[in-house]
Amino acid sequence: MTGTVQEWHLTARPVGRPTPDDFRLVERELPAPGPGEVAVRHTYLSVDPYMRSLMSPAQTGASAYRLDAPMTGGAVGEVVESRAAGLSPGDLVLSALGWRTGAVAPADRFTLLRRVEGVADSAFLGVLGMPGLSAYVGLTEIAGLRAGETVFVSGAAGAVGSLAGQIARLRGAKAVIGSAGSDAKVAYLTDELGFTDAFNYKTAPVRTQLAKAAPDGIDVYFDNVGGDHLEAAIDALNHYGRAALCGAISGYHATEPPPGPCNMVELVKKRITLRGFEVIDHTDLQPRFADEMGGWLANGQIRFRETVEDGIDRAVEAFLGLMDGRNSGKMVVRL
Amino acid sequence: MTGTVQEWHLTARPVGRPTPDDFRLVERELPAPGPGEVAVRHTYLSVDPYMRSLMSPAQTGASAYRLDAPMTGGAVGEVVESRAAGLSPGDLVLSALGWRTGAVAPADRFTLLRRVEGVADSAFLGVLGMPGLSAYVGLTEIAGLRAGETVFVSGAAGAVGSLAGQIARLRGAKAVIGSAGSDAKVAYLTDELGFTDAFNYKTAPVRTQLAKAAPDGIDVYFDNVGGDHLEAAIDALNHYGRAALCGAISGYHATEPPPGPCNMVELVKKRITLRGFEVIDHTDLQPRFADEMGGWLANGQIRFRETVEDGIDRAVEAFLGLMDGRNSGKMVVRL
Repeated sequence: MTGTVQEWHLTARPVGRPTPDDFRLVERELPAPGPGEVAVRHTYLSVDPYMRSLMSPAQTGASAYRLDAPMTGGAVGEVVESRAAGLSPGDLVLSALGWRTGAVAPADRFTLLRRVEGVADSAFLGVLGMPGLSAYVGLTEIAGLRAGETVFVSGAAGAVGSLAGQIARLRGAKAVIGSAGSDAKVAYLTDELGFTDAFNYKTAPVRTQLAKAAPDGIDVYFDNVGGDHLEAAIDALNHYGRAALCGAISGYHATEPPPGPCNMVELVKKRITLRGFEVIDHTDLQPRFADEMGGWLANGQIRFRETVEDGIDRAVEAFLGLMDGRNSGKMVVRL
Repeated sequence: MTGTVQEWHLTARPVGRPTPDDFRLVERELPAPGPGEVAVRHTYLSVDPYMRSLMSPAQTGASAYRLDAPMTGGAVGEVVESRAAGLSPGDLVLSALGWRTGAVAPADRFTLLRRVEGVADSAFLGVLGMPGLSAYVGLTEIAGLRAGETVFVSGAAGAVGSLAGQIARLRGAKAVIGSAGSDAKVAYLTDELGFTDAFNYKTAPVRTQLAKAAPDGIDVYFDNVGGDHLEAAIDALNHYGRAALCGAISGYHATEPPPGPCNMVELVKKRITLRGFEVIDHTDLQPRFADEMGGWLANGQIRFRETVEDGIDRAVEAFLGLMDGRNSGKMVVRL
């Protein structure tokens, strides 16, 4: 840095699919860090599906993006200057101060990271970060996966879905079925990630393809998509089945409410549980997750992909590409 | 009885609202009980919303009604002849051999009942029976009600709903809101059953009325209705809210799938759990329920109503009246 950073501002609240015109790249002069503060130069920024909802007019929570102000998101960076105990120049840190090339902030906004041998620092935004923890929590805590069960993961080539499917396999699932939006992604799921079966949801109705892939039904559904995927899963879920609802990317651009599942009465007949969750509520499981995931990574039992866009000026394109499913695995921006 | 009984057969699978033409009252000669069997004369028969789904063409389970065969349902009766140990003439018993004036069957099809002082035998089909246990299990086990929470019960003047609301109050809910289909029922909920607030869902949208009755949202939803009630409840549920899905009477006559809630994405944002259940899975809680409900009844803390139709020939009318909401509390047929 020091001194000047570039940061993305939201300039208009998108209705439907966002366009580049909704964002502006702004240059800003940063102050030197004050007492208790550190200056960080970012090396990787995260773009994630949840960010779409923070842009919406309907979003009113504290985390909603404000107009003409820096956006937030996961970022990995290196400390370049420190006036805080516990952080020194060269330290690798994680923060929510994304969408910018660097930041000056109080030290408690940053988490010190320990580099993992053979794994790029961007992994802290993906397999070892919130997407990994989301997959882990959703399967083990929210859906309560038991060995021997059949699992269906939608959006299974995405950052969270690809890990959810593999964790299901490593936790003893009998079969793991995935859906994805291209034949190449489908091949990736079965050939590289060890999914039992997978299908392209763009070529035939989800309901038909899921019934074929899981003739005996499914016990657990990990939902990243919502909409017709959720309806098909409710049909396929066996008695006492559980669905962990992690996201609903199919509805993120909807300008009017999407139709809901027309088979809700099945929830009673089959004693099904649908449970929504946000990973932020489960950070107490981070240490257990880091241990288990670290072990799987060290043993080569988990594979992951990243789609990398280079340069701060590509961040909006990276986000829009993610919304359109042009990523395979975690989408990150490398600075 | 002895010898001749009358029993109702389903003669056609209703599409939409059932009509009297879908049923036929048949006379049948019963054999004398064989070894291990008893003969029972019924005094009360139960008609319940779940029976509608057992009539449907789509229903394929073991419990589905067969055409031109006796229908099943809750029945209270008196043993008139016994060739089994443990049951003697005069004993009060409960069985699933309803929709008929009497039956001969193996003794293990009957549960021996202990009469409760001051309570009619029909209570074993309602407040002390499956409807009571449904309300108890749904609130305490499925939704996990905690003292101080706000509860919404749909179909709250019905057999299950009226008990769910009162159990919520007795278990320390801060507020209990009910919906019902007439102004008289609404008055019954607030004036006699102690609901904090109630509304007539036929006079204005559920969403509007629920938002007015629960300006700070609801924590628990006990669903007997589905459809627009469920959608409104999802809107009103607070973060970490839970819904126990007990039934969906709004969709029972639907000839095509009813539209689902268009706000499913709220389940993720608000970390909501929807959980369907059937009381038959929870009969292990019957003793605890009987203790607690027996105590409330003895103390006059629970009120209940029955709508009684007289005579086996009125059973179909009783069932159709139930479907149309012409009952207040448990609907029973007295023989």
